[in-house]
Amino acid sequence: MQEDQAEKILKKHRESIDRLDAILVYTLGERFKLTQEVGILKAKYNLPPSDLAREERQVARLDKLSKCADLDPEFTKKFLNFIIREVIQHHQIQRNKQ
Amino acid sequence: MQEDQAEKILKKHRESIDRLDAILVYTLGERFKLTQEVGILKAKYNLPPSDLAREERQVARLDKLSKCADLDPEFTKKFLNFIIREVIQHHQIQRNKQ
Repeated sequence: MQEDQAEKILKKHRESIDRLDAILVYTLGERFKLTQEVGILKAKYNLPPSDLAREERQVARLDKLSKCADLDPEFTKKFLNFIIREVIQHHQIQRNKQ
Repeated sequence: MQEDQAEKILKKHRESIDRLDAILVYTLGERFKLTQEVGILKAKYNLPPSDLAREERQVARLDKLSKCADLDPEFTKKFLNFIIREVIQHHQIQRNKQ
């Protein structure tokens, strides 16, 4: 393969990456809307703020899904923690508003 | 609304969150496959390892998408950096293997 062909493939891959990023942004947007609703429900109805059994099930499930998607399960764990930290921050902001 | 109804809604929201997490895991799996290919192409054809103009365009595009998806643009920036750090690590591992 010539360098200009390699550059064409690179361009195509980048276009795919951009489309996947749009999926990620909109999916995360939807996910945060739901965790926001969950935060409001928990605060309003005095439901427990964290649920360790649920979190354990989530970790186990994502571990299994990562293997199916050929994604490094360690990365998925880091990713889930990254999202959960953000959700907790959102919930705190929510609580301070009430 | 009664507490048991709130719990039912909470359960439904959590099921939606689980489905969205599956989308995220598979989309990230696909994204990493592509960045892996990009890394191989760049190494094989001596294409520049980083492209600042592309990164700037990505940041600007994701900022716009975040606003459309009602997602905090600051979070999206942190998220993109989190992914890019992981991609760079993958590329380094790839280079060390060659």
